[in-house]
Amino acid sequence: MMEKNVKPYGQLSAAELSALCGGLQTEFEGWKGKALKLDMSRGKPGKGQLDLSMGMLDTVGSGGPVASEDGTDTRNYGVLDGIPEAKGLFAGMLGVPEAQVIVFGSSSLNVMYDTVARSFTHGVMGAEPWYLQAARTKDPIKFLCPAPGYDRHFAITEHFGIGMVNIPMTDEGPDMDMVERLVNSDEGVKGIWCVPKYSNPLGTSYSDETVRRFAALRPAAKDFRIYWDNAYCVHHLYPEADRQDSVLDIIEACAKAGNPDLVYEFASTSKLTFPGAGVAAMAASPANIADVKNHMKYQTIGNDKVNQLRQAKFLGDPENLAAHMQKHAAIIRPKFEAVLDALETQLGGLGIARWTKPRGGYFISFEGLPGTAKAIVARCKEAGVVMTGAGATYPYGKDPDDSNIRIAPTFPSLGEITQAAQLFALCVKLVSAEKLLGERG
Amino acid sequence: MMEKNVKPYGQLSAAELSALCGGLQTEFEGWKGKALKLDMSRGKPGKGQLDLSMGMLDTVGSGGPVASEDGTDTRNYGVLDGIPEAKGLFAGMLGVPEAQVIVFGSSSLNVMYDTVARSFTHGVMGAEPWYLQAARTKDPIKFLCPAPGYDRHFAITEHFGIGMVNIPMTDEGPDMDMVERLVNSDEGVKGIWCVPKYSNPLGTSYSDETVRRFAALRPAAKDFRIYWDNAYCVHHLYPEADRQDSVLDIIEACAKAGNPDLVYEFASTSKLTFPGAGVAAMAASPANIADVKNHMKYQTIGNDKVNQLRQAKFLGDPENLAAHMQKHAAIIRPKFEAVLDALETQLGGLGIARWTKPRGGYFISFEGLPGTAKAIVARCKEAGVVMTGAGATYPYGKDPDDSNIRIAPTFPSLGEITQAAQLFALCVKLVSAEKLLGERG
Repeated sequence: MMEKNVKPYGQLSAAELSALCGGLQTEFEGWKGKALKLDMSRGKPGKGQLDLSMGMLDTVGSGGPVASEDGTDTRNYGVLDGIPEAKGLFAGMLGVPEAQVIVFGSSSLNVMYDTVARSFTHGVMGAEPWYLQAARTKDPIKFLCPAPGYDRHFAITEHFGIGMVNIPMTDEGPDMDMVERLVNSDEGVKGIWCVPKYSNPLGTSYSDETVRRFAALRPAAKDFRIYWDNAYCVHHLYPEADRQDSVLDIIEACAKAGNPDLVYEFASTSKLTFPGAGVAAMAASPANIADVKNHMKYQTIGNDKVNQLRQAKFLGDPENLAAHMQKHAAIIRPKFEAVLDALETQLGGLGIARWTKPRGGYFISFEGLPGTAKAIVARCKEAGVVMTGAGATYPYGKDPDDSNIRIAPTFPSLGEITQAAQLFALCVKLVSAEKLLGERG
Repeated sequence: MMEKNVKPYGQLSAAELSALCGGLQTEFEGWKGKALKLDMSRGKPGKGQLDLSMGMLDTVGSGGPVASEDGTDTRNYGVLDGIPEAKGLFAGMLGVPEAQVIVFGSSSLNVMYDTVARSFTHGVMGAEPWYLQAARTKDPIKFLCPAPGYDRHFAITEHFGIGMVNIPMTDEGPDMDMVERLVNSDEGVKGIWCVPKYSNPLGTSYSDETVRRFAALRPAAKDFRIYWDNAYCVHHLYPEADRQDSVLDIIEACAKAGNPDLVYEFASTSKLTFPGAGVAAMAASPANIADVKNHMKYQTIGNDKVNQLRQAKFLGDPENLAAHMQKHAAIIRPKFEAVLDALETQLGGLGIARWTKPRGGYFISFEGLPGTAKAIVARCKEAGVVMTGAGATYPYGKDPDDSNIRIAPTFPSLGEITQAAQLFALCVKLVSAEKLLGERG
């Protein structure tokens, strides 16, 4: 960090803080006058990113082709687990054999929901359904929730009345001492939510050691599964290999550790092509895949194979896919950098905040002073910038320190995001100064 | 029926039957020599029907449009319940207000599955979830199953351990005396599976009186719902209005009867455009729709809106849709007629079978002598023609009389279906003659 002529807020006197608050408040009022209307709340691609995949819409047109590579007419009923080329696409993305992939409809969240729901009502690979286990043992089913994490994961488990246990995140992933202790001792612990690469919201990736420790778990519950949401598996911000994170293949690691059935891995093309019209997939051991298919046959005759064909044709081989993802990166990297610049310039050295500097994914994670996150988000909203709700990154929406804020820089334009980041930094300063002043009072 | 020089099999002597069996067996051996390989098992459109909708693939191409009529970018995240024009499409098909429609992904079966699953795990409009009710009362949840009916409906309820009660079908729909008695008295009865128009497999439609009696039910269970699978709502075989069935609007009928929340209606474009890539919908009262959406938000951020846009653009206004469906009819009507001709010519007057003569839908329902259906299907298979499994049209796959066979004429070509129908009729004669002969012995 550059030397700057700033004094950490913690070293300011009450009088200095008071003067600071006054100045910041005036500045804030100026921002309110601009009547901004910006949304940094969700990990949503911008229009320019969507335009990158318009060619996909022509890959299956009225002139065809409509047959998959094995000759299946994608327009008609059938093929429960997906056409071969769509399986191949995900097999390539995740580094797993095609036979260990099921391709679904447009939403990986829906696949994860269904996985929890199926386990609840019908059990995992022949085990007693969770609702019956919970009734018999009088104990709720539990999930471990590395936090900060993805709010929609936590919403699914909460919706099923599944108890959620916060697991702190380190630079290498979840606190594995705690994970091992809980998973290996408590039969009520049935799952853990993981975003291993460019995690939501930290943007950091799990270390090899973390993946190996996951694979070596010896769960007390035979129906425990790792929910490995590899949502950002190919979502690098930089083209240089040495600026890209790589995460060990969990499925291979589990197999090597003699734990082949330990994990369900999820992915989708939502942030490769169209979030509203991609395809999702699950990868797992052959036994898990057979179990899921045996249940799926009651749910559907088959998912949208024409769209599977579109995605597979458009994203093509791995080099093609990597090149396509770098087009995304070229659009969103400047947005990430604009936010990081604003944070560094405005907040560097003030001792009131830290933040992650991700090399991929969709988020920057911000940590303010304890007890300031809700107030910062509220101030931003007052001036027309919507952030992800403070607390949303924790189970039950409760951030114990009220300090974490998820920044999603992708949706607004570069100009807008630059403005929004400036305003955000101002709100951080204002709320932090007010808080410190209050503590002196 | 034309006068024919045939004697009902029941009036033949043992010697005559024996001679008949010999001749039919010889004829059957001849058919086996043809090595047919035909599939009449599922209600699946043929290739010619799929080709009718190829233009749909061009309605959303790389040149756009990608915005829905309210300006939503269909490519991006969001819009839980479907874009306005897709709601409008189903509102028109079902005769309900757009606000009472949710549009989903590609499979109405999946929507029905989710509806049962949601009721099981989370309850209906605030009522206790079914799994808790069942545990408390020590009684299983029950569904009424008009039979013969759709095997995939029955498979869903069986999969959830829901008890299934057979309801006989009359020419006007389910036996409503029995439906009223059970629904209005038994709090454990939570649903009934209905295919009201060109029903699967009968091809017949519910009378106005039946619909009104449904709407006037006074269920013992406040969380009882009619599952109204209007799969064939616009699937007429004939263009003339007086040769088309019409069924009263159940949603309006329920509202008029003071029972607005009594019914969930389902439909899809699977057999309008592509079975593998259509869109599905639910229509219901505002309170039901709100309840479903409140649950859906945990399942997904939104379904494939680009495909919703495609379907809406292609099927367009009601006249356009009706004209499109008549193109389907022009292809499949001759197939239905070929089967009906073969049945009439080969089996008319023999006293061993009756069958329905549908004016729409995808099936003809065949009733043979009691105890012959499995044997007939087995004989067909022996000669290379796959029929829907005997029993499949009844809960638990058990046809109490072993007499019903579902004939699905749409998938094979006209030439193939003509052959298959001849073979089928021969197998009916052979198995029936053998059975009657056995009874004399």
